[in-house]
Amino acid sequence: MSPSKSDRGSETRELLLVTAERLFAEHGVEAVSNRQVSEAAGQSNNFAVGYHFGSKEELILAIVRRHSESMERRRTDLLAELTGSPDLRDWVSCLVRPTTQHIASLGIPSWYARFIAQVMTHPSLRERVINESFTSRSLKQALEGMSRLIPRLPEDVRQERSDMGRLLIVHMCAERERALHAGTANPRSTWESTAAGLVDALVGLWLAPVSARR
Amino acid sequence: MSPSKSDRGSETRELLLVTAERLFAEHGVEAVSNRQVSEAAGQSNNFAVGYHFGSKEELILAIVRRHSESMERRRTDLLAELTGSPDLRDWVSCLVRPTTQHIASLGIPSWYARFIAQVMTHPSLRERVINESFTSRSLKQALEGMSRLIPRLPEDVRQERSDMGRLLIVHMCAERERALHAGTANPRSTWESTAAGLVDALVGLWLAPVSARR
Repeated sequence: MSPSKSDRGSETRELLLVTAERLFAEHGVEAVSNRQVSEAAGQSNNFAVGYHFGSKEELILAIVRRHSESMERRRTDLLAELTGSPDLRDWVSCLVRPTTQHIASLGIPSWYARFIAQVMTHPSLRERVINESFTSRSLKQALEGMSRLIPRLPEDVRQERSDMGRLLIVHMCAERERALHAGTANPRSTWESTAAGLVDALVGLWLAPVSARR
Repeated sequence: MSPSKSDRGSETRELLLVTAERLFAEHGVEAVSNRQVSEAAGQSNNFAVGYHFGSKEELILAIVRRHSESMERRRTDLLAELTGSPDLRDWVSCLVRPTTQHIASLGIPSWYARFIAQVMTHPSLRERVINESFTSRSLKQALEGMSRLIPRLPEDVRQERSDMGRLLIVHMCAERERALHAGTANPRSTWESTAAGLVDALVGLWLAPVSARR
C-alpha cells in the first residue's frame, strides 16, 4: 500500500470515529446505523464502517479506546503523586479527575460524555466497555487504594455503590457537557468545580452507614 | 358526543400514552415522531397524537402526569407517618420510595423509569418536567423536612447535590428496570432493597463535608 493511500485510510478512520461519536451521543447507539455513520462522514462507500472497523460494536470500542489512553495517562500521573495517601479524597479524585480533565481538554462542543452515557444504556455494550475499562491497571490501583480506606461493606452494597459512583460521574459529566453545548451551564462552574463536587459526594456515598433495614 | 364515542376516545388516548411511553423509553424522545406513535398504536389516522394531545411535549407531560398521581399519593401517606421526625433517613425515603414503590407496582416490563431517564436528557423537556414535579406539595414538604436536618450548604453545592440525587434515583431505577426486563437483574435484589441502598447513599451524599478546595 502506498503511504498516501495508508494516510487516507487513517484519515477516513479518524473521520468515521469523530462522526460516529457525535451521532451516537445525539441519537443513541441503536438509533444510528453503520450506513448513517458512513454517509454523515461523507463516505461514498456506505460500507466504510464495516471496512474499517468490522462491526458497530468494534467501532464503539475504538471510540472508547481513542479517549481511554489520555485518561489512563492522567490517572497514572495522579497516582504517582499520592503513594500511600491516607486521604480517601485523593483516591476518589483518581476516579473522577482523569475523566473531567480529559473532557475539559476536548473543548466545546465535546461529545464524549454524552456518548458514554448513551453506551451505558446498552446492556451488552455496557458490559464490554466496563470490562475493558476495569482491566486498566491505573483504575485497579485507584480502586484498591480507595477500598483500603472505607469500612468493609457487604459485597452487594459494594457493587451497588460502585454502580452509583459510575452513574454519578457519567451523568453529571454528560449533563454538564450538554449544558455547555447549549450555552445553559452555570457561568461560575468549571470542570474542576464539577470534579470537586463529585469527589465530595462520592466520599460521602462510600462512607455512608449501611442501614440495618436491608 | 355519544358516550360510546367518548369511551373510544379515552381508550385511544390511553393506548397512545402507553405506546408512546414504551417507544420513548426504548428509542429516546427525539428519535420517535408523533406519526410513529400513532402507527405503533394501530391508529389509521396518523395525526392521532396531534388530535388527542396537541404536541409531542403535551403527550410527554401527559405520560408524566399519568404516573405522578400515584407517586404523590404514596408520598403524602409516607409524610403523614413521620411528622417532625429527627431522622434524615425518613425524609430522604420520601424522595426515593414513592418512585421505587410505584415502579414495582407496574410489574415487568415497565417503561416508566427508562422513559424518565430519556426525558431527562432533553434540555427543554427536562426543565418542564422538573418544574412540574417540584410544584408538588408533598415533594416540597419532603425537601423542607430534609433541609432542616442537613448542615447549611452554599447554594451552588445545594443545587449540585440536588442534581446528583435526582440523577442517582432516575438512573438507578432505569438500570434496574432494564435489567429486570432483560432478565439480568441480581435475583436477590428487590425494589425495596434498591430503595434502601439509595436512601443510605443519598444520606451520605447530603451530609458529605464540602471540600475547602472549591
